[in-house]
Amino acid sequence: MFYTDNKLQFPVRVETPDPQFARALQQAIGGVEGEIRVAMQYFFQACGARGNPKFRDLLMNTAAEELGHIEMLATAVALNLEGAPVSIKEEIAADPVSSAILGGINMKNLLSAGLSAMPVDSDGVPFNMSHIYASGNIAADMTANVAAESTGRVLATRLYNLTKDPGMKEMLAYMIARDTMHQNQWLAALEELGGPTNVFPIPNSFPQEQENQDFSYAFLGFQADGSDPVAGRWSTGKSLDGKGQYTSRPMRPLGDEPVLGPAKPNSGAQTEQL
Amino acid sequence: MFYTDNKLQFPVRVETPDPQFARALQQAIGGVEGEIRVAMQYFFQACGARGNPKFRDLLMNTAAEELGHIEMLATAVALNLEGAPVSIKEEIAADPVSSAILGGINMKNLLSAGLSAMPVDSDGVPFNMSHIYASGNIAADMTANVAAESTGRVLATRLYNLTKDPGMKEMLAYMIARDTMHQNQWLAALEELGGPTNVFPIPNSFPQEQENQDFSYAFLGFQADGSDPVAGRWSTGKSLDGKGQYTSRPMRPLGDEPVLGPAKPNSGAQTEQL
Amino acid sequence: MFYTDNKLQFPVRVETPDPQFARALQQAIGGVEGEIRVAMQYFFQACGARGNPKFRDLLMNTAAEELGHIEMLATAVALNLEGAPVSIKEEIAADPVSSAILGGINMKNLLSAGLSAMPVDSDGVPFNMSHIYASGNIAADMTANVAAESTGRVLATRLYNLTKDPGMKEMLAYMIARDTMHQNQWLAALEELGGPTNVFPIPNSFPQEQENQDFSYAFLGFQADGSDPVAGRWSTGKSLDGKGQYTSRPMRPLGDEPVLGPAKPNSGAQTEQL
Amino acid sequence: MFYTDNKLQFPVRVETPDPQFARALQQAIGGVEGEIRVAMQYFFQACGARGNPKFRDLLMNTAAEELGHIEMLATAVALNLEGAPVSIKEEIAADPVSSAILGGINMKNLLSAGLSAMPVDSDGVPFNMSHIYASGNIAADMTANVAAESTGRVLATRLYNLTKDPGMKEMLAYMIARDTMHQNQWLAALEELGGPTNVFPIPNSFPQEQENQDFSYAFLGFQADGSDPVAGRWSTGKSLDGKGQYTSRPMRPLGDEPVLGPAKPNSGAQTEQL
Amino acid sequence: MFYTDNKLQFPVRVETPDPQFARALQQAIGGVEGEIRVAMQYFFQACGARGNPKFRDLLMNTAAEELGHIEMLATAVALNLEGAPVSIKEEIAADPVSSAILGGINMKNLLSAGLSAMPVDSDGVPFNMSHIYASGNIAADMTANVAAESTGRVLATRLYNLTKDPGMKEMLAYMIARDTMHQNQWLAALEELGGPTNVFPIPNSFPQEQENQDFSYAFLGFQADGSDPVAGRWSTGKSLDGKGQYTSRPMRPLGDEPVLGPAKPNSGAQTEQL
Amino acid sequence: MFYTDNKLQFPVRVETPDPQFARALQQAIGGVEGEIRVAMQYFFQACGARGNPKFRDLLMNTAAEELGHIEMLATAVALNLEGAPVSIKEEIAADPVSSAILGGINMKNLLSAGLSAMPVDSDGVPFNMSHIYASGNIAADMTANVAAESTGRVLATRLYNLTKDPGMKEMLAYMIARDTMHQNQWLAALEELGGPTNVFPIPNSFPQEQENQDFSYAFLGFQADGSDPVAGRWSTGKSLDGKGQYTSRPMRPLGDEPVLGPAKPNSGAQTEQL
Repeated sequence: MFYTDNKLQFPVRVETPDPQFARALQQAIGGVEGEIRVAMQYFFQACGARGNPKFRDLLMNTAAEELGHIEMLATAVALNLEGAPVSIKEEIAADPVSSAILGGINMKNLLSAGLSAMPVDSDGVPFNMSHIYASGNIAADMTANVAAESTGRVLATRLYNLTKDPGMKEMLAYMIARDTMHQNQWLAALEELGGPTNVFPIPNSFPQEQENQDFSYAFLGFQADGSDPVAGRWSTGKSLDGKGQYTSRPMRPLGDEPVLGPAKPNSGAQTEQL
Repeated sequence: MFYTDNKLQFPVRVETPDPQFARALQQAIGGVEGEIRVAMQYFFQACGARGNPKFRDLLMNTAAEELGHIEMLATAVALNLEGAPVSIKEEIAADPVSSAILGGINMKNLLSAGLSAMPVDSDGVPFNMSHIYASGNIAADMTANVAAESTGRVLATRLYNLTKDPGMKEMLAYMIARDTMHQNQWLAALEELGGPTNVFPIPNSFPQEQENQDFSYAFLGFQADGSDPVAGRWSTGKSLDGKGQYTSRPMRPLGDEPVLGPAKPNSGAQTEQL
Repeated sequence: MFYTDNKLQFPVRVETPDPQFARALQQAIGGVEGEIRVAMQYFFQACGARGNPKFRDLLMNTAAEELGHIEMLATAVALNLEGAPVSIKEEIAADPVSSAILGGINMKNLLSAGLSAMPVDSDGVPFNMSHIYASGNIAADMTANVAAESTGRVLATRLYNLTKDPGMKEMLAYMIARDTMHQNQWLAALEELGGPTNVFPIPNSFPQEQENQDFSYAFLGFQADGSDPVAGRWSTGKSLDGKGQYTSRPMRPLGDEPVLGPAKPNSGAQTEQL
Repeated sequence: MFYTDNKLQFPVRVETPDPQFARALQQAIGGVEGEIRVAMQYFFQACGARGNPKFRDLLMNTAAEELGHIEMLATAVALNLEGAPVSIKEEIAADPVSSAILGGINMKNLLSAGLSAMPVDSDGVPFNMSHIYASGNIAADMTANVAAESTGRVLATRLYNLTKDPGMKEMLAYMIARDTMHQNQWLAALEELGGPTNVFPIPNSFPQEQENQDFSYAFLGFQADGSDPVAGRWSTGKSLDGKGQYTSRPMRPLGDEPVLGPAKPNSGAQTEQL
Repeated sequence: MFYTDNKLQFPVRVETPDPQFARALQQAIGGVEGEIRVAMQYFFQACGARGNPKFRDLLMNTAAEELGHIEMLATAVALNLEGAPVSIKEEIAADPVSSAILGGINMKNLLSAGLSAMPVDSDGVPFNMSHIYASGNIAADMTANVAAESTGRVLATRLYNLTKDPGMKEMLAYMIARDTMHQNQWLAALEELGGPTNVFPIPNSFPQEQENQDFSYAFLGFQADGSDPVAGRWSTGKSLDGKGQYTSRPMRPLGDEPVLGPAKPNSGAQTEQL
Repeated sequence: MFYTDNKLQFPVRVETPDPQFARALQQAIGGVEGEIRVAMQYFFQACGARGNPKFRDLLMNTAAEELGHIEMLATAVALNLEGAPVSIKEEIAADPVSSAILGGINMKNLLSAGLSAMPVDSDGVPFNMSHIYASGNIAADMTANVAAESTGRVLATRLYNLTKDPGMKEMLAYMIARDTMHQNQWLAALEELGGPTNVFPIPNSFPQEQENQDFSYAFLGFQADGSDPVAGRWSTGKSLDGKGQYTSRPMRPLGDEPVLGPAKPNSGAQTEQL
């Protein structure tokens, strides 16, 4: 169950409204690296968490935090959009700066939302909830969370570099710090699950003797000339999961050309396929 | 540039066609954990790889491998669909097994594709390329790849448990092994980039003194009663990135209730909002 | 800012797990009439609310409630999915009931989520955030909310009729009651805004003398034989917004056939179009 | 069955082509508040209308009208796009106005459609037919239609304010008037169905004694400090559906923390979850 | 401008309602080969038709026909859904036929639409208007229309084979015939445009001397072993557009490995990439 | 199985980076006329090809080619994006050219991908794999391929006209030539299948005596005034498939107004509908 107090987690102020920056901020709301994604991802992972209940609590707690981040960003978008024109006056047509502003925003922020935030990315594409990764495997979920916070912090630093507004920089400096913690938080959860050598390969409950172990630690090459693939830590030495030795070799096809045979009668094929 | 030899990377055979299993296999083609996703993700990461060129080669090489996996799975789907009915005969209406088969497949595999594979998931939802994570940050990409292969292997083991066809088990045992390697491969790439304490927080090129460091390693609580959040590795000790000490505390709002003020004239609001 | 207490708003219990009903419940999570939709819609409307701040508070308060409803439903889905098979045994192939169960669930609930809930509808289609209507016009938002709760309650009663599990009936009886209130709540908000004759036509800030008033209260007919369109309350009497008199008449084209003229050179058209 | 006469319902003329305004107009074609949405929504509601057949006729008649509105807008988009450049000449690179024009249009209107309209919104996002609300409940459909026409008219007035072209203003003045009527038309249909006290709660066929009536007219508070939620018409007095009395109180969790228990063997979970 | 007469273009009757067939019919409404697609495609092509106005008329006329086909199919879906259960009774749980029916339908047809048609495909995926191909090139549009009617007729014959209801067979026999005509109609339009040797390559307005003519009629091989690609009509003889001679040869890379160089500072990359 | 050699099929060079042109090029990667579409379409058609295996080889060979085209374009996008700003400096706000550049790019190319290519179109909309047409009917597939290459070449010529960079013109001149060949290649495949009179109507395996032959070659008119539809090659003469004679006549409804009757009890309808 959720509660609110109508206050912002961290102050949001904009000294000089910048509609183009509002557009950029939309990526942090409705982009695949954005806050809706992490809020809902942690929420659904929590709802499906089986086993030790502390992971449910950890996840739901941080879901609550991320909801507050969407709220902050939505406020920031609305404040930045105050600078956008809502009606055309004679002067604007001849003024390249105003014209560029109108051309440079997400039109929907104006036309659909009346200068407010929307759950869309910086090009106006709505967020799609297929991006909520909640696998039922707690370790896979944690790796997905590390990945989400990594792209999330990359985005936040790009936004930080795109603005010179002190209020916006302050807000983003807070959010970047939270992304630092969240990367570390999910890495810590993987530690609690035993660290890399216990966690991997995910899922660790599948008996590895049932997989085709000739291929479990081989870096295979798919170079057209049959040469060895590029060497690196992935080619030699003990595997990171601690359960094998990396090798490297070119791959050659083990199967033949697949033949499906003729099409069934009444299956809508051409006569030539029957 | 890409080449093909029309052969399968690994043999694909189906002893007893099972249209419902064809539906399940579609998840491994067009699901968000599927092979289109990884093939295209590695491909686009390779195309955008800046810095040391060996990561481009590593990524493009494995993209080529994954393309062959789609091909294997598509063949497996078509072979399993051979068991689906394409026309209704008198007997079928009264036959619950046949009826369930027709109800249990992705209808589009029959109606749109004529008993062949499609780039859709196990519920018939087409793959959307927004799932291709290619961030321009090589470490963020590698964490995304570890995550992708983790959910990928979870899916493959679920499929393995859902079939008793020896051919299908063999194919999946190969694919599970490849997922084992790919998890290890991307973990190895992170090692090459310096391992956790160098890699994190991602991006490591952002000066941490510019983030709000009061919040960089604090596990914040959002419990309604103001209590401390659930304790764990994330609450105490050295942070996994090696750059801080975890702490834990309840969060309280630092901002006020946001007030946007009245709406602009001519902005499509109600008069009461102006 | 949001908080949680990890408890459920209302008890969720399932006496007899029913995987097909889990599929149906998914509609109430990720369907367009579902709880993600209302939670996020009220949230974004709150974030963009300009004018009297009490609407912001009203909306955000109810957003918090709806988040708890998603949590309840996600729990219900997971509990119902306990009845689904995760591995194929010899007996199942010959057993039409088990086979129908597997065919009748959203495959992704099993394959992607490991028997947990997902933000998808009852056919496995992910929720798309374009369904969040937050227009910047408070009255338009309230009508959208009445509509959302109307389809929401229709859905909840359909679900109620599809289950005989006492726990599920109890949970849905609670949710149906909340939908009753929410319909009434948004209707009350429209009353606060002055009721129909003040609120409509939305937006009431646009001067009606600028619209083409010959057509503002005319029910136009588009019957092929030029006859009058079907009569009703919409054809005669005072208009519901109190500002006009309904009339009714067949429509005839006032414009000519549109002619775009030739295509531009270099615009990719056929030579015949230039 | 449908017919056409190749003429426009209302004249469409553009004195000064404005490619950026073409982009804005796309919202009225393929936006969620646009004409495709209402045309198809009324069409599908008509096709599924059960009970009194006059609602089918009412809906299908207005579906025909809206198809003509798409045609008008598509013509307007094409005429406005006449002003867009299709080839780059030396001068353009140095000319900020031309450059802004190219940057400010939907690129697809040029690249995919050759300076014609598309079924996309003002940011180039294709319309998705999930926005067609046709619930099988005639009253829910009518509330959805009121909502659609409310956001539709808000959009049309925003477009009206964004142009100074007399032809475009004339066309939009006609469309705004039609939206006025359509809001009133669907409100009238709700009157025919008995008005608010008969219509609500939707569906009115569900016996209210089966819902949990302790919660049917209570405005519940989800404030973190346990305080009462914001007061208003929704807190006291007779409910708008005439069947209850509004009350208001803070909500506290009635359920416990949900516990799903351990994961099933073979379900792809980590060993720690079993 | 469009008109309706509320009658069906061709009689629609269902002797024995079959909810699973209703699901299959949905593909012909909201599938990518379905009637919404062609109706809207011809409509938008008409709206953007430049040059000889007879193509506008041809397209809009057939758009009107296709709207009537959606209406027929939507009626057929609703009539077939009459056979679906809307409430669970004791007996059903133990009855595999009823259970399979419920599992085998699109759940949304019941839960969202109350046993009516929806603009979704046979797996419940909503139609997306990105499938409306309207290129601004009349010949490209006509080839897209031939393709659309080809997959459309394939689908219709598959549906014909999946039903034994005489009413449904009659309706589909009509629709298959219309698809025959529409394939021929768009082929005839290509004849009017001059036939293959005038029409191709599309667009014929681009001067072929500006393309790299070494590659204009060469069938290139991408076989891993450098062998010639499979021979056929595409390897030798006069090209179908009458403007070249087919040749065939293996392709070898003409470019080097692409090198993007280091990432920009402040671009969110890892330090190692700078 | 697929291989790579890390080299480009054709050289890609950019003399003057142009971020707006990068945006335009994205259409050729992730647009519905783009290279992902054809690569994946040929791939899936190959995987589902039944009957003569040479079509599988033909398709898979060209799929390999198209993968290399995506690679070329992705490289071109990254090179053009080198010109985009990644941080805001004082001067930029006052500089309309820089501001227009930032407003005119796909924001995601910067924010999500760090100045690299993405699988999205020129307005930032991700490619959706529902556009992969692979019908199981080889002739329908070939017509879809002709259509894909027709819109593909139209797009490529538009891009050619939008740039004056010699490197980009060279690359596009190569791609336009390949589209010329591919149009001819698929036309040749239709010739191998017997040419128009054998191929059409697709599918040619459906016995035409089962369709309603009164309507197989009739161009039907849907003009509101009952007049004959526009005349052309489609109205008279032998049909292009060689199996009928075109005729033309107005259509009149053969069915009545559809009546669905009352709604079922418990189906969520209003009482008035029961």
